Amino acid sequence: MSKKHKVGLLDLDIYGPSLPMLVGLNQQPEMTSEKKLIPLEKYNLRLMSFGFINSENAPAVWRGPMVSRMTQQFFEDVKWGELDYLLLDLPPGTGDIQLTLVQKLALTGAVMVTTPQELALLDVKKGADMFSKVNTPVLGVIENMTHFLCPHCNQTSQIFPGSGGEEESNRLDVPLLGKIYLSPEIAQSADDGTPFVLKYDDSPITAEYSKITNQLIELAEN
Amino acid sequence: MSKKHKVGLLDLDIYGPSLPMLVGLNQQPEMTSEKKLIPLEKYNLRLMSFGFINSENAPAVWRGPMVSRMTQQFFEDVKWGELDYLLLDLPPGTGDIQLTLVQKLALTGAVMVTTPQELALLDVKKGADMFSKVNTPVLGVIENMTHFLCPHCNQTSQIFPGSGGEEESNRLDVPLLGKIYLSPEIAQSADDGTPFVLKYDDSPITAEYSKITNQLIELAEN
Repeated sequence: MSKKHKVGLLDLDIYGPSLPMLVGLNQQPEMTSEKKLIPLEKYNLRLMSFGFINSENAPAVWRGPMVSRMTQQFFEDVKWGELDYLLLDLPPGTGDIQLTLVQKLALTGAVMVTTPQELALLDVKKGADMFSKVNTPVLGVIENMTHFLCPHCNQTSQIFPGSGGEEESNRLDVPLLGKIYLSPEIAQSADDGTPFVLKYDDSPITAEYSKITNQLIELAEN
Repeated sequence: MSKKHKVGLLDLDIYGPSLPMLVGLNQQPEMTSEKKLIPLEKYNLRLMSFGFINSENAPAVWRGPMVSRMTQQFFEDVKWGELDYLLLDLPPGTGDIQLTLVQKLALTGAVMVTTPQELALLDVKKGADMFSKVNTPVLGVIENMTHFLCPHCNQTSQIFPGSGGEEESNRLDVPLLGKIYLSPEIAQSADDGTPFVLKYDDSPITAEYSKITNQLIELAEN
């Protein structure tokens, strides 16, 4: 995604929406006269999250059918306008949100994110197998929390030992799109509402994010 | 929990059960003649998880009502025998699993686990507020991934900056039971199926786990 692309980002984690904090926005979206939600805009992205609507941060103590209705509303009642890409951020699991999604939308593909650890991979495998079951191609795998680079001595440690990203990309026969290592600046950027890549444009992590993005654009267009 | 206590551990993450890997068990539980599931036993614990029943590791692509039925079955159809404590491990969120639990069982209390980061705290707050709504007391807070101790230079780094554990224990006016720092040995023990505290009984992390346990026993008995 570059500045020339129009990109929408839909946070589908109804129980734990992160997008409002990630972009530093805490405001209710407006509505069109046809009662469609108008996405918020920041960082050249069009954004929608349950967290914008539930701005009090009350817990969504909801059973599945309510979650499905809310998920579907986000597809049908948001006035995205013309977009090149719509990215959907899903919570882990294979429940109502994921099922409603794959049944109601024709997705170009899914991207799986895992840590190197076997224990994390277990859940990621289940997600990937769900997408296969419903004929949604997995475009690639991203490994997160690959290692930690100590700022005191510049040596790396693998805090979550394993090679989950590589294993899963081999199992699915799809590319390992990139590896993002642990950095306090990523967590801090998330809490501050400023995308890491804008604040640290010289970082090797930013280069890795760009590499991932470019591959995804290519995969999505073929 | 010490060796003199009889402890049951019920993993309620239907979509991503971790217990089988954490204890290194991959076998189907047997049934009594009254069709009650018999918990597996290891490390002096009685154990039950959806992962034991679904030993093929197929994804549970289930909507909420099915998840609620399965959750309830775990309360009603497991022959725990006499126990001093039954620990329930819940996935994050405030959905069908959590709702079924608080509606069907009288819980002694809940323990919230958070990382130091604001972004993680956001979801933990929602969980704590759900428990308050249904009059389940929160007994305390545990902070996980507090910092990382570099094995190369022995200096610490806070990879997830913040003080989420302290903040949340203050907000709820409950004790901060302990802080567990990041360690490759914790992740490795999880993948190997050996509890960290058994393998590293001299570690300061094991001492912290004991501190947490002793406080919980005291809180649960008052």
